[in-house]
Amino acid sequence: MGERLMDELFVGKSFARMDKDKVIGRANFINDITLPRMLHAKILYSARPHARIKSIDTSKAEKLMGVRAVLTGFNVPEVKVGFLGDQTPLKKDKVRQFRDEVAAVAAIDEDTAEEALDLIKVEYEDLPAVYDPIEAMKPDAPLVHEFDARGKPRRNNLLPLPWKLEAGDVRKARESSKYVVKDRFSTQWVHQTCMGTSGGIAEFDVNGNLIFRSVTNVPFGGKDRLDMFLKNLGLKGRSRVLTPYVGGSFGSKLDTDIYEFILVLLAWKTGCPVKIVFSRKEEFLASPPRQPVIATVEQGCDSNGRLTFRNIDMILDNGAYTSWGATTPSVMMIPVSSLYRVPNVKFQATCVYTNNIYAQAMRGYGNPQATFVIEQSMDQLAEASGIDAIEFRKINANVPYEKTPMDLKITTCPMSECLEIVEKRLNWSEKRNQKTSRGVGVASFLHVGGGARVYLSDAQGIIMKVDDEGKVTVITGGTDQGQGSETIIKQMVAEATGFRPEDVSIFQGDTEVCPWDVGTHASRHAFITGHAVLLAGADVKRKVLDLAARWMPEMIRFDLSKRARKDPNFQVPLLDFSPLMDTNNLELRNAEVFLKDDPENKHFRLPVAKILRRAHLVGTGKGEMVVAEAFYDPPNEMLNREGKGNLSCCYTFGAHGVEVEVDEETGLVTILNYVAAHDVGRAINPMLVKGQIYGATVMGCGYALTEEIQTNHGRVMNPNLLDYKILTAKDKIPIDPVIVEPIEPSGPFGAKGIGEPACVPSAPAIVNAIYDAVGVRIKDLPVTPEKLLKAIKEKKAKEQ
Amino acid sequence: MGERLMDELFVGKSFARMDKDKVIGRANFINDITLPRMLHAKILYSARPHARIKSIDTSKAEKLMGVRAVLTGFNVPEVKVGFLGDQTPLKKDKVRQFRDEVAAVAAIDEDTAEEALDLIKVEYEDLPAVYDPIEAMKPDAPLVHEFDARGKPRRNNLLPLPWKLEAGDVRKARESSKYVVKDRFSTQWVHQTCMGTSGGIAEFDVNGNLIFRSVTNVPFGGKDRLDMFLKNLGLKGRSRVLTPYVGGSFGSKLDTDIYEFILVLLAWKTGCPVKIVFSRKEEFLASPPRQPVIATVEQGCDSNGRLTFRNIDMILDNGAYTSWGATTPSVMMIPVSSLYRVPNVKFQATCVYTNNIYAQAMRGYGNPQATFVIEQSMDQLAEASGIDAIEFRKINANVPYEKTPMDLKITTCPMSECLEIVEKRLNWSEKRNQKTSRGVGVASFLHVGGGARVYLSDAQGIIMKVDDEGKVTVITGGTDQGQGSETIIKQMVAEATGFRPEDVSIFQGDTEVCPWDVGTHASRHAFITGHAVLLAGADVKRKVLDLAARWMPEMIRFDLSKRARKDPNFQVPLLDFSPLMDTNNLELRNAEVFLKDDPENKHFRLPVAKILRRAHLVGTGKGEMVVAEAFYDPPNEMLNREGKGNLSCCYTFGAHGVEVEVDEETGLVTILNYVAAHDVGRAINPMLVKGQIYGATVMGCGYALTEEIQTNHGRVMNPNLLDYKILTAKDKIPIDPVIVEPIEPSGPFGAKGIGEPACVPSAPAIVNAIYDAVGVRIKDLPVTPEKLLKAIKEKKAKEQ
Repeated sequence: MGERLMDELFVGKSFARMDKDKVIGRANFINDITLPRMLHAKILYSARPHARIKSIDTSKAEKLMGVRAVLTGFNVPEVKVGFLGDQTPLKKDKVRQFRDEVAAVAAIDEDTAEEALDLIKVEYEDLPAVYDPIEAMKPDAPLVHEFDARGKPRRNNLLPLPWKLEAGDVRKARESSKYVVKDRFSTQWVHQTCMGTSGGIAEFDVNGNLIFRSVTNVPFGGKDRLDMFLKNLGLKGRSRVLTPYVGGSFGSKLDTDIYEFILVLLAWKTGCPVKIVFSRKEEFLASPPRQPVIATVEQGCDSNGRLTFRNIDMILDNGAYTSWGATTPSVMMIPVSSLYRVPNVKFQATCVYTNNIYAQAMRGYGNPQATFVIEQSMDQLAEASGIDAIEFRKINANVPYEKTPMDLKITTCPMSECLEIVEKRLNWSEKRNQKTSRGVGVASFLHVGGGARVYLSDAQGIIMKVDDEGKVTVITGGTDQGQGSETIIKQMVAEATGFRPEDVSIFQGDTEVCPWDVGTHASRHAFITGHAVLLAGADVKRKVLDLAARWMPEMIRFDLSKRARKDPNFQVPLLDFSPLMDTNNLELRNAEVFLKDDPENKHFRLPVAKILRRAHLVGTGKGEMVVAEAFYDPPNEMLNREGKGNLSCCYTFGAHGVEVEVDEETGLVTILNYVAAHDVGRAINPMLVKGQIYGATVMGCGYALTEEIQTNHGRVMNPNLLDYKILTAKDKIPIDPVIVEPIEPSGPFGAKGIGEPACVPSAPAIVNAIYDAVGVRIKDLPVTPEKLLKAIKEKKAKEQ
Repeated sequence: MGERLMDELFVGKSFARMDKDKVIGRANFINDITLPRMLHAKILYSARPHARIKSIDTSKAEKLMGVRAVLTGFNVPEVKVGFLGDQTPLKKDKVRQFRDEVAAVAAIDEDTAEEALDLIKVEYEDLPAVYDPIEAMKPDAPLVHEFDARGKPRRNNLLPLPWKLEAGDVRKARESSKYVVKDRFSTQWVHQTCMGTSGGIAEFDVNGNLIFRSVTNVPFGGKDRLDMFLKNLGLKGRSRVLTPYVGGSFGSKLDTDIYEFILVLLAWKTGCPVKIVFSRKEEFLASPPRQPVIATVEQGCDSNGRLTFRNIDMILDNGAYTSWGATTPSVMMIPVSSLYRVPNVKFQATCVYTNNIYAQAMRGYGNPQATFVIEQSMDQLAEASGIDAIEFRKINANVPYEKTPMDLKITTCPMSECLEIVEKRLNWSEKRNQKTSRGVGVASFLHVGGGARVYLSDAQGIIMKVDDEGKVTVITGGTDQGQGSETIIKQMVAEATGFRPEDVSIFQGDTEVCPWDVGTHASRHAFITGHAVLLAGADVKRKVLDLAARWMPEMIRFDLSKRARKDPNFQVPLLDFSPLMDTNNLELRNAEVFLKDDPENKHFRLPVAKILRRAHLVGTGKGEMVVAEAFYDPPNEMLNREGKGNLSCCYTFGAHGVEVEVDEETGLVTILNYVAAHDVGRAINPMLVKGQIYGATVMGCGYALTEEIQTNHGRVMNPNLLDYKILTAKDKIPIDPVIVEPIEPSGPFGAKGIGEPACVPSAPAIVNAIYDAVGVRIKDLPVTPEKLLKAIKEKKAKEQ
């Protein structure tokens, strides 16, 4: 499958995105959906970071005209939810963070629901709180949770998630190293900041089944969690998840969020569909961001600059509860163990409860934090060993078909090529080490590119229905959060089946109808869907050609004799129809069937729609239409107990190089040049791949320079887009995306996944460039002008 | 397939209807659906029965706040629509009936649209009109259409639809007959009077594709017509038809109605979704009813009472335009040629344009009119030959496995059995011929029961998706108008697959996702769907059992060893797993897999969901899930040019017997007893079959006694449920439905279709009973008290 087809018609072409309705405001997002009898929900959040709830008085809210339900932990069953089952949808005993859901209202409109919230009175009794994960690890720290999910008393704030990986002998390697560097780095909370905020609509049908319109990027995972919730509520129904257009996820919609369980409770209590859509403020306050880490990294190399060992210890601020953020160390292990060839590796990550907001997945799933740490340490070690930073990376670069200490089996790997592209395009040798307030920096990455078996199944099912007008409907378990999958799926389906992209329509986002898929995460969607498309598409093609072999001779004969009847001068050609009768001789391309070995033969070429119609409308008894299906489960592995295993079918590599200018008077960093070289296996749609690279790189630059959820004693201080600064089009980062296509044998049409990785190396590349420009290394993200100016001043003070 | 399975678990059982949400008002019909940016449409109908349109002034309407579009024939392309292409959605040159659509408005709400209609001024110039089909056939009658669809001048009001059937030699047979009767009968306009009125929502997506939410019972046929309309408008898009819950069709939703084309025009002009839902008044005025017929029938028999010939001539009032009503003679041919054994048959039907409302299909599709005529003539001929009416029918009854003059191939046929049931349950011999104001009457019927190939394909496609929780989603091209198909499909799927009805969910009503189906008409849905279910279900079962054979031994071993680990005293039994490894040894029933030959073996019995989950969650590379599909095209035939052919795989028979009491002072008819004996092949769900019999019989009684669209010079005078009298629950007709189950070999589980026929024989049975009671035969439906009283008085006057 990985072989490059020499004559592809649609794959590899930059088709414009086909979901154009988004551009003109005619796409229907969750915001736009209205159901009969629908109510609107609002949630009351905690006013304290850590407190006992003494009482909740909802009596006034209940009496407000238009209010249909007021729920608190006291009038709904106590059902644990979340990755570790460490919370309930509505909090009863105590609140542990400012985003704790204390009460919820369903009313006839949003304003009424909002007004009802104001009428709810909560009495709190404050408890001592802890906001610093290192403080929280101390024996006398206040306990965020007195009991674990099973009711056993807890003695500390550590999560029962022992993330460890060890390969080789780090201690021995350290002893034999020529150069060793050690440092400590930290990152901030950043928010996914999707254009589409969180929201959903829950309703129960008359049989007690839940229909949940969700913005999730894992519809079947969401369904499982909702099913479990129903079961734990003592309800018999099962759930069906429908996903409308979604305005971005970037991981924020990976877990079933608390508001979703609350919607279920409200729908159950009221018997009506209940909707919520977060305001931007609610989105910042009550949807879980990327977690901050504090990392200690130690690396060594020999006299030739070859890495000898890497030892990384991380502390993750888990916040008050646990979502997927706590599992990101499983992905951090990938760069820790396998970014560059390093024989001896040790990694440990500790997740700690605090009274802060809690964290979730975000694009790259831990890789941005880990790569931030590793790639600065790489620069430090290069400097220590006197080797140029790019040269040092090339010495240690990953190579094709190696097996890493984590047992990742690397296939194609153009890492050195990517580094060379950066070197060349940045004019590295001239720009490096100039110390003129301008500098260049580099960072590489590797990421899963061929799925990621984080669940027992990494599969996707697909059904293709072909109608007698030659239209192909693809029913797939996947979902789209805005990444443009519709376009590339249509390209791949057209290529695989022989139809055209405009003949294809996609149906997804309904767990009842669509076959199973593990979800659109881990940059897996195009890769896994592509394989499913190839399997089902081959079946479609075979079935269509079978019909062609059966009907074409008759159809052609009929057309010729009709023409002869109409035109007495028409000479009916003598044709040998026998080659047509064998499926193997036929080819279907661009919605036409013709002889494989004689494509120029116009007599033997028919539009596929005509053949399908003929096969359908036989007249009696034996009409046929074409449906095909496939279930593709990739040959990747789950991590074993040691944290090892070949998680993905392939890995994607790349290097970002950046040239910055630092204004030493203001601390402001300007990006002058940005080269993003990416191994994508094969670009199904180069324009869309570049779109992913642009978008993720801008996100990575925001991570480096501007984005930060600021908290004060657990309270988010900047829940709006004025104070939380994402980079936008007007920041004009001059990104030069370079696509490297080694044609991945394990990939569909040679492709690897590319959704996440471009946001991974930006921060270290920028920080490395700043260091090159002004000799100052900022070890704590983001690199704000304030921090940088202070560091520059300190450096200058020292130098004087 | 027709063989009766001796141990069926679900088929043949009276499961309660599963679409319970309708009962408590939580089902969403077209009325309930709201889309973002949706506008509301209203249509202005003609104020004249026949007139030239001199001008339409929409200027004031256009200026009304909230109006988004005002369309007339003058500002939209002139595109012909309808079965014969004899009209345009909005009329420009002239109006030909009071329901002619003259203008349409889309506005922000219904009230605004309604107000805008009042502001439209139309100037008419009256033309002479014709309301009687016999008048309309005269050479000097005003022409309803001056030109045909191709623009050729027309010379008369006859439709170019020559409905003729001839078999044997009627003239010769007449000469040799012992008894001959001849009479003339007529029927009225009746309305389908669905609980759910007509309505729809049209919208265009950004690519110019039409999404049409429709109440149609032929989604794919509707799609074809909409596609053609788009094409004729010069638009490139294609259409997708979605059907929500529908509140009945009875044929009224068979054709794409004019308001639907108007919705498309409004959606196209405004760029917004546009909705219309008819009021009850609009439904009566602007949705096409069952057409009236004037029939001359002549029949003869020999001295033994054996039918010698039948000659029927019909005139159908087509109204001003042509819909499917004009094609009902194709179905009239069935009873005309084949109800009872009659060797010589002649049939001719003439459809005539008038300035009346035009007609559409209705339950039975011409059969009620034809049977009304035939079954009165049968009584007249029985009387003429001095043979009891039931005896006469038994002499001539259809018999199994005969071929009729129309080339229908009858299979199972319990017609005599049905007549005997009526005879016995009505206590016929005692009640007949008493002339005490009470009387009994009988009528039989035959109808298609195994599909009806009215289109080149009579097929249905189906897809079954099984998930790892053991749930089966059935994606079918069929649709439900309220007949309860959800319930029986679930029963049949459970039976065919081995799962349970509660494991099954149905997805239908989306032409994009569902595989093709010709539509839910001609009593074909259960029959054709059942076959598709059997085909796909067998494939599902085989695939599931393949997985079971692969995984069960390992699963059972694992469970046993786990138990042994937990309980040291547990003795692991010595089991021979080899029988489990062969799919052929396994059986799946009631969602459990077990050994076919050893069903009591508890070790070798597992819930199917557990096996499916195991097969899905293999861990790496080879997870599997089950999808199966089928496309069932029955072996029935289209009618040939002579109107002959085996239209259906089988035919359903029955007899209705009724005892009436006539109040000779008031003319009021009371039904004292009503026996409805029906050959259903096999009842998939006896309760639902009885529901169909109840409902259709009540409809038939209304046809006989109360229902009539009254017109005055082409204007409908009773467009409301106060003046148009349907029978309701409070009329308490004491129906005794009797199900006869010959187990049809061509039917799925032995079933025949049963949606329509119970409304067929009611009217003649009642009229025959009235004749038996008071010696008066009413030849024109309905038998109103006025008509009956008048006839009784006339009879008495004659007798005196």
